[in-house]
Amino acid sequence: MTPAAKKVAVVGFGNIGAGVVDALYNRGVTGIELARVVDIDIETPRPVKVPREMLSTDWREAVDDPEIDIVIELIGGIEPAETIVTEALRKGKDVVTANKMLLAHRGETIFSLASELGRQVGLRAGFVGCHTLIHEFQQAGVSAKAYRRVYAILNGTSNYILSTMTSDGKGFEEALREAQEQGLAEPDPSDDVDGEDTANKLRLVMSLITNSYRMVQDIPVEGIRKVTIQDIGYADELGYAIKLVGIIEQANGTHHVAVHPALVPKTSLLGSLQGASNGTEIEDEYGVVSGLVAPGAGVAPTANAVVKDLLDIVDGKGLPMPNSAHELTLGKTGDAMRRYYLRFSVDDHAGVIAQIGKIFWDHDISIAGVIQKESAASEDFVPLVITTRLAREGNVQEAVAEVDQLKVVRAATRMIRVLSADT
Amino acid sequence: MTPAAKKVAVVGFGNIGAGVVDALYNRGVTGIELARVVDIDIETPRPVKVPREMLSTDWREAVDDPEIDIVIELIGGIEPAETIVTEALRKGKDVVTANKMLLAHRGETIFSLASELGRQVGLRAGFVGCHTLIHEFQQAGVSAKAYRRVYAILNGTSNYILSTMTSDGKGFEEALREAQEQGLAEPDPSDDVDGEDTANKLRLVMSLITNSYRMVQDIPVEGIRKVTIQDIGYADELGYAIKLVGIIEQANGTHHVAVHPALVPKTSLLGSLQGASNGTEIEDEYGVVSGLVAPGAGVAPTANAVVKDLLDIVDGKGLPMPNSAHELTLGKTGDAMRRYYLRFSVDDHAGVIAQIGKIFWDHDISIAGVIQKESAASEDFVPLVITTRLAREGNVQEAVAEVDQLKVVRAATRMIRVLSADT
Repeated sequence: MTPAAKKVAVVGFGNIGAGVVDALYNRGVTGIELARVVDIDIETPRPVKVPREMLSTDWREAVDDPEIDIVIELIGGIEPAETIVTEALRKGKDVVTANKMLLAHRGETIFSLASELGRQVGLRAGFVGCHTLIHEFQQAGVSAKAYRRVYAILNGTSNYILSTMTSDGKGFEEALREAQEQGLAEPDPSDDVDGEDTANKLRLVMSLITNSYRMVQDIPVEGIRKVTIQDIGYADELGYAIKLVGIIEQANGTHHVAVHPALVPKTSLLGSLQGASNGTEIEDEYGVVSGLVAPGAGVAPTANAVVKDLLDIVDGKGLPMPNSAHELTLGKTGDAMRRYYLRFSVDDHAGVIAQIGKIFWDHDISIAGVIQKESAASEDFVPLVITTRLAREGNVQEAVAEVDQLKVVRAATRMIRVLSADT
Repeated sequence: MTPAAKKVAVVGFGNIGAGVVDALYNRGVTGIELARVVDIDIETPRPVKVPREMLSTDWREAVDDPEIDIVIELIGGIEPAETIVTEALRKGKDVVTANKMLLAHRGETIFSLASELGRQVGLRAGFVGCHTLIHEFQQAGVSAKAYRRVYAILNGTSNYILSTMTSDGKGFEEALREAQEQGLAEPDPSDDVDGEDTANKLRLVMSLITNSYRMVQDIPVEGIRKVTIQDIGYADELGYAIKLVGIIEQANGTHHVAVHPALVPKTSLLGSLQGASNGTEIEDEYGVVSGLVAPGAGVAPTANAVVKDLLDIVDGKGLPMPNSAHELTLGKTGDAMRRYYLRFSVDDHAGVIAQIGKIFWDHDISIAGVIQKESAASEDFVPLVITTRLAREGNVQEAVAEVDQLKVVRAATRMIRVLSADT
């Protein structure tokens, strides 16, 4: 006998909601029956039609209905999304959500409640661009030392802007405007270009890797507003592309988590990622690197991710979700060992490199490469670009502060992290 | 109470076997206890040590031991591997295997037996380069129309050879020799370079996508021996790289499965894949393309894949494996709709393109692009390169046969498939 189909309510009938309704109601998914669609606006025509009696403006009609087995939360933001999700769990329902902000900031409440009540929370739609690797992450989480690093491009808007700056030589503002005209950036793009969207997805990835729903809140985050064409050009000359990267690194049980613009090798998976795609590179405990490329957003991929979660629930498979509350050991930012790209603005004097070299030496920083072009006659200062070998971030910051005090330095030094094996 | 650890026997103590023993015995995996290691040679020193009493030369000591819960088959080939696997299943054990040849050719026997007995067969290690996507494949299999195409580079040796030919301008034989010197190709490379290894992995991918263990035997397979630097050069000029690609395409429930050298866009995931890596692109029913890159072989990735299967068994998760016997509808090769690269060797006469164009017109083939260089004075025939728009493969084959009868044609026409959207 086939078990009765699970009854599902969609809360939030926007673009994504319409995509999910289309998948569940028009195309149909075995084992799933769409029973209710909730939105504050049920009058505006949608690209997909459902019977009038299925619609409601009151999310309580989804959450309080004992017939509903699964609530799909697609309204975004913290409230009322958090109340809808937690109430649904308390009423014995499973939940699927595309709300990465909610999970990244209220994940501990939501996942601990789900754990306690034996309910599932599907989160694939919250980071569409890398959910395919969730199963791998989860299994990696089984043994504590199972990964060394995750480097991920998780924000399509930022990647589109950086790709355009690189290929067309456009500045940040111009590339941003172009992205906005194409509907790839919001009128207020700050969540994307300042790195917070990447940070929220990274919090979810981190919770899955470690199987802990103690969401890491305190992440150093730097967006892409300060990335210049000049730096992109130098990076290119050195064999790198500049990307906005979510970074998770682990050594001996200590994790470093950060979001930064970074130089990645042009020929690497992340370095070759164009346009609005997302990508993830994982290095496991054996040093084996795998990578994934996927669209980071969009109605079809997001609706698809929701459907995958629903199918896992129907099939009785455990959804990928963190289910313990163990504390994580986070490293201090100053202790992170990385490589650095440094662009100094210095007087065109003999002896400048020697002065900087001395300060680096004192801070235990080795220089990997130098670019200094001959200056045009009209300029009295020139950019000096140095890449370092692996160095302690705290030492690099101290050294740069010291260099910036030198008389020969004419502007604040620009520091960008380099994510590649030491040379 | 923690359940007792599952007892595991490793059959086959070669390089991969040693890697698995290292993971299970030296590093340790929660819930797994290595109990026996079998090989016909237990005298030659291995890079990993196990107690003498754990070793045996008789696989019956693994398969017949009621204490053993899981048998890991790592000896390769059909026999005795098939007997070991089927006997282990009959004795109530789960099986994990890295033996893609066995599964591709005896999959129906093995998976139907496992289904009948309610046992698991772990196969991730059989196609290391794309196993991460297995869960996605499997879920895609749930709804019949859930994928449009899978294009995959599944053989590291061939990709290394083609990459070297492309980057260094070396011919096939020279690139092969270099791969052999580096241990990346076998002394007898035919399984890799003639496409059979790719075909075996493709059979497994196909069985997972469709959830049917009716392994597709009759696949058109062409290897890379006939790929020339000349064709690589023309492809490059047109914006393509030549790769050995496993192809699965579906439209309206009819599947086309093939292994061919193919032109793929240089900027695509597959086109940018260098060296011995494997890669997979999947386009789902919505036209959304995702991709994965991973090492295609190697001790650590393979041992890792074995461990993932073991963990799924310990966790009581269903392993990804096909579990039904439904017949698949395979399309006729002649009906496949693809684009084609054609290199004609023709006399340097006016009117040649017109003659060929007429034949194409008669066969309903549209020309997308043409390259004809001015010939050197010493040559009396020149290569003429034509790419087509989407065309029926049967029509193209007929047209080429007709062209090859023309008096102006001096050598057999070279046809290579083009895997990219119609222009």
